[in-house]
Amino acid sequence: MYIPIILGTARKGRQSEKVTVFMLEQTRKRGLDSEIIDVRDYRIEATDNSKEPPEAKKLAEKIKKADAIVIVAPEYNYSYPGELKMMLDMLYEEYARKPVGICCVSAGPFGGARMMQHLKALLVALRMVPAGELYFPSVYGLFDENGKINDKTYEERAMKFFDELMLYANMLNNKS
Amino acid sequence: MYIPIILGTARKGRQSEKVTVFMLEQTRKRGLDSEIIDVRDYRIEATDNSKEPPEAKKLAEKIKKADAIVIVAPEYNYSYPGELKMMLDMLYEEYARKPVGICCVSAGPFGGARMMQHLKALLVALRMVPAGELYFPSVYGLFDENGKINDKTYEERAMKFFDELMLYANMLNNKS
Amino acid sequence: MYIPIILGTARKGRQSEKVTVFMLEQTRKRGLDSEIIDVRDYRIEATDNSKEPPEAKKLAEKIKKADAIVIVAPEYNYSYPGELKMMLDMLYEEYARKPVGICCVSAGPFGGARMMQHLKALLVALRMVPAGELYFPSVYGLFDENGKINDKTYEERAMKFFDELMLYANMLNNKS
Amino acid sequence: MYIPIILGTARKGRQSEKVTVFMLEQTRKRGLDSEIIDVRDYRIEATDNSKEPPEAKKLAEKIKKADAIVIVAPEYNYSYPGELKMMLDMLYEEYARKPVGICCVSAGPFGGARMMQHLKALLVALRMVPAGELYFPSVYGLFDENGKINDKTYEERAMKFFDELMLYANMLNNKS
Repeated sequence: MYIPIILGTARKGRQSEKVTVFMLEQTRKRGLDSEIIDVRDYRIEATDNSKEPPEAKKLAEKIKKADAIVIVAPEYNYSYPGELKMMLDMLYEEYARKPVGICCVSAGPFGGARMMQHLKALLVALRMVPAGELYFPSVYGLFDENGKINDKTYEERAMKFFDELMLYANMLNNKS
Repeated sequence: MYIPIILGTARKGRQSEKVTVFMLEQTRKRGLDSEIIDVRDYRIEATDNSKEPPEAKKLAEKIKKADAIVIVAPEYNYSYPGELKMMLDMLYEEYARKPVGICCVSAGPFGGARMMQHLKALLVALRMVPAGELYFPSVYGLFDENGKINDKTYEERAMKFFDELMLYANMLNNKS
Repeated sequence: MYIPIILGTARKGRQSEKVTVFMLEQTRKRGLDSEIIDVRDYRIEATDNSKEPPEAKKLAEKIKKADAIVIVAPEYNYSYPGELKMMLDMLYEEYARKPVGICCVSAGPFGGARMMQHLKALLVALRMVPAGELYFPSVYGLFDENGKINDKTYEERAMKFFDELMLYANMLNNKS
Repeated sequence: MYIPIILGTARKGRQSEKVTVFMLEQTRKRGLDSEIIDVRDYRIEATDNSKEPPEAKKLAEKIKKADAIVIVAPEYNYSYPGELKMMLDMLYEEYARKPVGICCVSAGPFGGARMMQHLKALLVALRMVPAGELYFPSVYGLFDENGKINDKTYEERAMKFFDELMLYANMLNNKS
């Protein structure tokens, strides 16, 4: 199974990168094929759904072959980063029936729960199938200086997250 | 009164520009001081709330002196353009208690009504005060080749829109 | 396949009943097993997720055996009727992985598009899988005095709506 | 100033009652005129915006004279209780320009943050002005057996909450 992980912020000093690397490690443990799709590599100047930019072609290729998708995104003003919206808006039918799990990240205690609501609405509009959520609140204290997670319960929670995602991937069997 | 109008998409071929120009004309009729704040002039590479980019300083200046704000934005996948989110996320306390009216634009019959819900949630998170909404559905047929609006009832509707916005601006009296 | 249709308002003079009857007729044409689950028959005095009320038991039985669910609901103040929320809140795990199609109804031109956003968020929280939407704007003029639909294109649209719903039902194969 | 507090759930065993009583005590300390508007006293059988039920008349009287409103509500399936929606839907123009503060309550760690998003969208649709939010997460451990709050920082937070609410009430000066 190929389950890429979208790193959904390009902000300098982004904490979501640590969460993304942690999730990538978990895919390795599960024997899943994965990679990071970093929004920094898919930047365009303005919303563009023409599918002409090379960034769109490159993204389409990865999304098409994905059995499921993970998105890691922080909460900025209760919603998702603009660069993530611009990246996702480049495609449309490629997303249909792809199960998607969301990891939300925040500096505060609520873990990006408000962003989660807005992002899920967007993903459903793109006809993806929400299949799991994992919250990373108080992210500045969650990793040590080597980027290792301090709270080991996240490993088990990530396993459950991937269980659900793979269950959906198997049911929807939506390889292109 | 100074009520700038944010043109919230940078997409090539954007129809929202026609709506923005129409709304600017209405401010002239009302004797309001206004101007277009075009998201194309405030593009940054990644979300940045450091207030260091020159774009942030320039935007802060305009928002601070605004008595109220109008935002014109199209609906992309049921939500707002990513470039608008990135622009708005550059500031925070500058928005507090500013009344904001939203003009939403769509090619389809529902006028961007779903985007409106998401944008209002964002504006409330930024502590602006929603004070009116105006819908521009089926926008491709709404203007003639000279950019003049075909449906003249919009002039009266724009007047009511500004009435409400100015009522709030007077009450909140929030000049910085 | 058993696909019941929830009539999601108990309001006197509700127009959604006409839409519900129309949708029931379409299930007959498709050879589907269906019936109306009228929120009027599931009224409780207060939110109750104890599963003790007879209404909860009766609803659980129908939801469990459903291959998919259709919900017809009007827009009241941009969101769903309170009685629908109370009814849905009676259950939880019974909904998991059930595909759900939404028919939204409004007196105005936007067809309940704002309610749709809120209802979908609720259904996703209940772990249902959104699988299609159909809008019934300007509902007061949409049916003749015998309750027959005036705009015959809705028959084809309903067929597509059920195609999508059944596609999901087959994939998720979630009979209990 | 008259600032009533709506207790927005009728569920048996509701924890929000403790939060409501706590907030009422804070209004006393501030010398505010207040009272609890308990949704249990405003129950109707179905959505009804005819303004004919005695419950609607009674509610209208209180809302009209309110300088601001506080709503205490728990999160059920990421959104608000159905009985609260039915109560609020009884009125419309009575709410216009009333500042409203929200206290959200949850058993879990995120304090009802998702419900908050949905409730705010509803209140803005009713043309109220959001003016402050206060979160009560992990509510089962937050009060002692006498209903006294364990975390004393809530007193200061409540003061700030009322500061903001009264600032808006003074600006909007919207007594009927």
